[in-house]
Amino acid sequence: MNSSYHGNISFTIFGQSHSPAIGVTVEGLPAGFAPDFEELSRFLARRAPGRGDCATARREDDVPEFLSGLHNGKLCGAPLSAILRNSDTRPEDYDELRIKPRPGHADYTAQVKYGGAQDHRGGGHFSGRLTAPLCIVGGLCKQLLAREGVEVISRIAEIAGIADRGELTVSTAERPFPVVDSAAGEAMQKAILAAKAEGDSVGGVIECAVIGAPAGLGGPLFGGMESRISRLVFGIPAVKGIAFGAGFEAAKRRGSENNDPFAMREGRVVTKTNHCGGILGGITDGMPIVFRVAVKPTPSIAVGQDTVDLSAMESAKLTVGGRHDPCIVPRAVPCVEAAAAIAVYDALLERRKEQP
Amino acid sequence: MNSSYHGNISFTIFGQSHSPAIGVTVEGLPAGFAPDFEELSRFLARRAPGRGDCATARREDDVPEFLSGLHNGKLCGAPLSAILRNSDTRPEDYDELRIKPRPGHADYTAQVKYGGAQDHRGGGHFSGRLTAPLCIVGGLCKQLLAREGVEVISRIAEIAGIADRGELTVSTAERPFPVVDSAAGEAMQKAILAAKAEGDSVGGVIECAVIGAPAGLGGPLFGGMESRISRLVFGIPAVKGIAFGAGFEAAKRRGSENNDPFAMREGRVVTKTNHCGGILGGITDGMPIVFRVAVKPTPSIAVGQDTVDLSAMESAKLTVGGRHDPCIVPRAVPCVEAAAAIAVYDALLERRKEQP
Amino acid sequence: MNSSYHGNISFTIFGQSHSPAIGVTVEGLPAGFAPDFEELSRFLARRAPGRGDCATARREDDVPEFLSGLHNGKLCGAPLSAILRNSDTRPEDYDELRIKPRPGHADYTAQVKYGGAQDHRGGGHFSGRLTAPLCIVGGLCKQLLAREGVEVISRIAEIAGIADRGELTVSTAERPFPVVDSAAGEAMQKAILAAKAEGDSVGGVIECAVIGAPAGLGGPLFGGMESRISRLVFGIPAVKGIAFGAGFEAAKRRGSENNDPFAMREGRVVTKTNHCGGILGGITDGMPIVFRVAVKPTPSIAVGQDTVDLSAMESAKLTVGGRHDPCIVPRAVPCVEAAAAIAVYDALLERRKEQP
Amino acid sequence: MNSSYHGNISFTIFGQSHSPAIGVTVEGLPAGFAPDFEELSRFLARRAPGRGDCATARREDDVPEFLSGLHNGKLCGAPLSAILRNSDTRPEDYDELRIKPRPGHADYTAQVKYGGAQDHRGGGHFSGRLTAPLCIVGGLCKQLLAREGVEVISRIAEIAGIADRGELTVSTAERPFPVVDSAAGEAMQKAILAAKAEGDSVGGVIECAVIGAPAGLGGPLFGGMESRISRLVFGIPAVKGIAFGAGFEAAKRRGSENNDPFAMREGRVVTKTNHCGGILGGITDGMPIVFRVAVKPTPSIAVGQDTVDLSAMESAKLTVGGRHDPCIVPRAVPCVEAAAAIAVYDALLERRKEQP
Repeated sequence: MNSSYHGNISFTIFGQSHSPAIGVTVEGLPAGFAPDFEELSRFLARRAPGRGDCATARREDDVPEFLSGLHNGKLCGAPLSAILRNSDTRPEDYDELRIKPRPGHADYTAQVKYGGAQDHRGGGHFSGRLTAPLCIVGGLCKQLLAREGVEVISRIAEIAGIADRGELTVSTAERPFPVVDSAAGEAMQKAILAAKAEGDSVGGVIECAVIGAPAGLGGPLFGGMESRISRLVFGIPAVKGIAFGAGFEAAKRRGSENNDPFAMREGRVVTKTNHCGGILGGITDGMPIVFRVAVKPTPSIAVGQDTVDLSAMESAKLTVGGRHDPCIVPRAVPCVEAAAAIAVYDALLERRKEQP
Repeated sequence: MNSSYHGNISFTIFGQSHSPAIGVTVEGLPAGFAPDFEELSRFLARRAPGRGDCATARREDDVPEFLSGLHNGKLCGAPLSAILRNSDTRPEDYDELRIKPRPGHADYTAQVKYGGAQDHRGGGHFSGRLTAPLCIVGGLCKQLLAREGVEVISRIAEIAGIADRGELTVSTAERPFPVVDSAAGEAMQKAILAAKAEGDSVGGVIECAVIGAPAGLGGPLFGGMESRISRLVFGIPAVKGIAFGAGFEAAKRRGSENNDPFAMREGRVVTKTNHCGGILGGITDGMPIVFRVAVKPTPSIAVGQDTVDLSAMESAKLTVGGRHDPCIVPRAVPCVEAAAAIAVYDALLERRKEQP
Repeated sequence: MNSSYHGNISFTIFGQSHSPAIGVTVEGLPAGFAPDFEELSRFLARRAPGRGDCATARREDDVPEFLSGLHNGKLCGAPLSAILRNSDTRPEDYDELRIKPRPGHADYTAQVKYGGAQDHRGGGHFSGRLTAPLCIVGGLCKQLLAREGVEVISRIAEIAGIADRGELTVSTAERPFPVVDSAAGEAMQKAILAAKAEGDSVGGVIECAVIGAPAGLGGPLFGGMESRISRLVFGIPAVKGIAFGAGFEAAKRRGSENNDPFAMREGRVVTKTNHCGGILGGITDGMPIVFRVAVKPTPSIAVGQDTVDLSAMESAKLTVGGRHDPCIVPRAVPCVEAAAAIAVYDALLERRKEQP
Repeated sequence: MNSSYHGNISFTIFGQSHSPAIGVTVEGLPAGFAPDFEELSRFLARRAPGRGDCATARREDDVPEFLSGLHNGKLCGAPLSAILRNSDTRPEDYDELRIKPRPGHADYTAQVKYGGAQDHRGGGHFSGRLTAPLCIVGGLCKQLLAREGVEVISRIAEIAGIADRGELTVSTAERPFPVVDSAAGEAMQKAILAAKAEGDSVGGVIECAVIGAPAGLGGPLFGGMESRISRLVFGIPAVKGIAFGAGFEAAKRRGSENNDPFAMREGRVVTKTNHCGGILGGITDGMPIVFRVAVKPTPSIAVGQDTVDLSAMESAKLTVGGRHDPCIVPRAVPCVEAAAAIAVYDALLERRKEQP
């Protein structure tokens, strides 16, 4: 089903931008696990709106209410469910969009799919707000991975064509702007504000690395880590591309350049380079799992745009109101981590079945 | 499961490079459908080995034997199963690789995953040969899509850094080399042969377009067409990246540049540009579904490489024997079409449930 | 996953007897469908507790709050989620049961499965209360089936060995006690009250019929209607058996007695008898789908019982407090209808994919 | 999908009675497992046709050919596939049945479902022959269970109303007729031959017990062992009912009679009785998992029957030719074991994910 993931853990994300609540139900997380709820809140805060000049002015407290699955602060084995109430909604902002779909958004396609019954307010179920439940699941998986020595880190690799510099080796989550090179980060922020000043938006690229995952996760064909991760990452609105390791650069190379030679390091098999992004034949090789994600510029812009009037079936002009992010990339960073954490934790659970 | 896809159609791909046979079982294709088996053979021939200087010298007839699911030349509703016998195998070529894993290949990771029980001969279940069953399913889905006016086309967009020129608007399948611009194609083939002469290999990029698909296919979150297509495409060995529409280029743009304005054309809603690759909010908008796939250079090269000896747990040198493609890209072209056809046909079936 | 069903519709049931709420998320119900919420409330009232002498004294209002999936009173295509708050809980009733598991209940087995982390209060996730979310999904499916001329009816066929008389041909839902023969019903109620007076409980049999379903639903092997229905029906706590058509009686017959001869009636193929319960080869034949369900006597009884003390690992005596049903059968009747409605509606959706 | 099971192991059964072959693909069995193929053959021989007066005269060698998934006699991690060629087919026996569906058989319903494209010969995909692939999977699961100390045993509990006597405590598989009491078995065989002499058939009941399974397998709601087992068991043609433990008898009892008191035995929690069939709240309690299965009399009988002529849409008479079992029950015994073994082994694999 569309809003669900079913693997060794399963979850369903529900809610619309302006429904009473959004939330998630999760099965398969281990009974007895005591989540660190403060850590989870900090993780959720990284994607929450209303946290600075570079983001939308809409504020949500985003403190999840757990309706089930907990007992004495621990997971009890029953499905975990968590909701976030939608308190700060201004549906009147969106009335025009029912008839005049926003370019680059799901307004038109959702209308076709649901025969006009869709909840168009604020993007409905297609709103970026639905990544909050994804981050609840992903945040818990991150904690579970950390207990097994696996860390999920990420950074903004590029915004508006401005690239970060240096290697991603440690978490950038605590920094005011999640880049390795702060000068590059400042240039990115200037580009965001410049676009904002013109009622426009910019896109970017996020890099994510999963460090410490054992060799042997994933599998052949559609069970490869690339399939598992990409399926979840493309669930994040605005993502339009993904590349593992050298990705599209590898396509320009010769095999002798791109192959990662094996070597021994401290009695362990490693590769001297990591062009494959830690994945060979769909299975982790024990090196960092590395991938990059292309995020398109936020489609909701204040600049006037051409669209159609679906009631009159004729051309129309549109100027979008409401409050929007001039750049969704910073808020998408934890979402990408969440998707990666879910994919890798799910593969870890699967691996247990193979090792009696 | 790893070697299976379960959606509105389901299939499982089985076999190893040197097992008695490889094959596929498929459920969910429509009873009463009479496949054009000659057309299917032509489609399979596009990925078959041994078809020219640019490919491996291994030959397989690749004429599928259908064991079940057919009655009087039509699908009878029972699962379809088809096998390809592995007649031309030379397992002795691979003995060294059990101990010395090939860089860039699944030798090492499969050994870890399966605890040494894996069938290492010729890449086992990780061999590119396993894309033949994928093409059987995809070829049938292509025929089914064609009956509904949907065409799946593709081209080599780049090899060894050499880009094709022009737009992909019609099938390149009948051409000797599947590009739009034959001069670019000749340059690509020279690059392949140059690499071959040095015992090396090159990678490339494949572009695929699905034309004529109705608006309304796909869905939110993990049911988006990007998730559905990427999950299948990454099942093709050597694929390391995928980008929809403008993809990683979109990440460099402003929203006002990247958004595709809606317009009316012959009473139908269209977009003036197609930077989104025909997908908005995970759902098709009625424009061509367009994506590009990065294929790494074939890891099996004759050039000497560094590896490890897993029995001695020490560094080692490896020179790979056997017969290999200096460039897998041309043979991967129909595989990408197959993956796209499966994803889109599956979404079409799902759509029927929504429209009573 | 355990608490989920994934087919052409999918849903996950969450909550524990004493968690903040219980509920369900559902995907795959048709966008645009306007549920009759009053009818749904009447359906839910049939399983609600506290409705007479024969049931537990615990009262729940059981008015679902829909958190998502609705827009202007219609399903909008996004996942539907509904919760029921747990207002009337008395967890102190259950403290002893953590150490002394109740015979016939999940106390012990849940403790083993979840390593002691389970929520034992009131049966936790294993409580009969979790059938309320099942009835929300099933009640909506009943309404959807009714729009296609399919009716789901049921009756109590037996309680404490006392059999109902007559055929199940029309709904018994509006009757004070859901039987065909009211005299039999009175005898059953007396048996329930007699057991109650002794702190004991009784079991029974429920018969369900789905009338008006077209021929052609279901499929071979594990897709047979028997597999589909039984899988859901056994999700109702206390169900220990299911039999389709003549069921265990058929096992005593000869083929010439048990086969249902085909005949023509008003231009339509029918069977003269319906020993097969409307299902041949797993597929509906157009006759009523008929099955019977065995419900064990409520395990929670006031009579003193032998159990073990899991802290001391020694024998112990147990007298269960709390409020319990002397007979769960009447309240289980709508649950069985719900399970049948889900299975049949799901099969109807599947059928649409077969008929372009 | 209908002919597939997807859990912690997954498999798809394919083939028709008269297609070139039938078979199965399986994923999820452990790499490194070396099946005992002779033991598997003996298990398959228990369901094979042509083994005595009480069965059909059709003979199949039923020696599976493994096409993939094996390497050096061990499972290599890739999907296992096995086929059985259909050598001894006489399709001309079945021509009439396309137009005149056999009462009690899938002829009519398959025709409706597949729009007339079904392979009607010998029951097509609905033939009892399709239980051979089920027994391949189940036979391997039985071997895997045995390695963990879990044994799956069964017996014929009843045929033609004649009940076996005594308790099922040890395997009856090596006996000429799989009952506990050989006198009862002789009476059953007489009843079968008496029916055969009249061109008629008889049904029966099979009892199965899984001994040695640990407590903690299964789960709540649809993940209960009853749901898991019933879903698979109803995949066996002719099964019309299933009851766990006391089953329909429990429905006649009081709670105080039916509850199984807990007790300590050799430091381990046991129950004094086993009316629940080893399953509480859907989860195993460590006692034998016990269930009974109702098998209808073989619908294919030589006695003349009423049916319809689907070409003329009018009443018709039918006398079935071909070779058929007067009683399918003896051959169904290993099939029931197979289904139970799959369900329990699958649950064992799932349990591994819960216990890091």
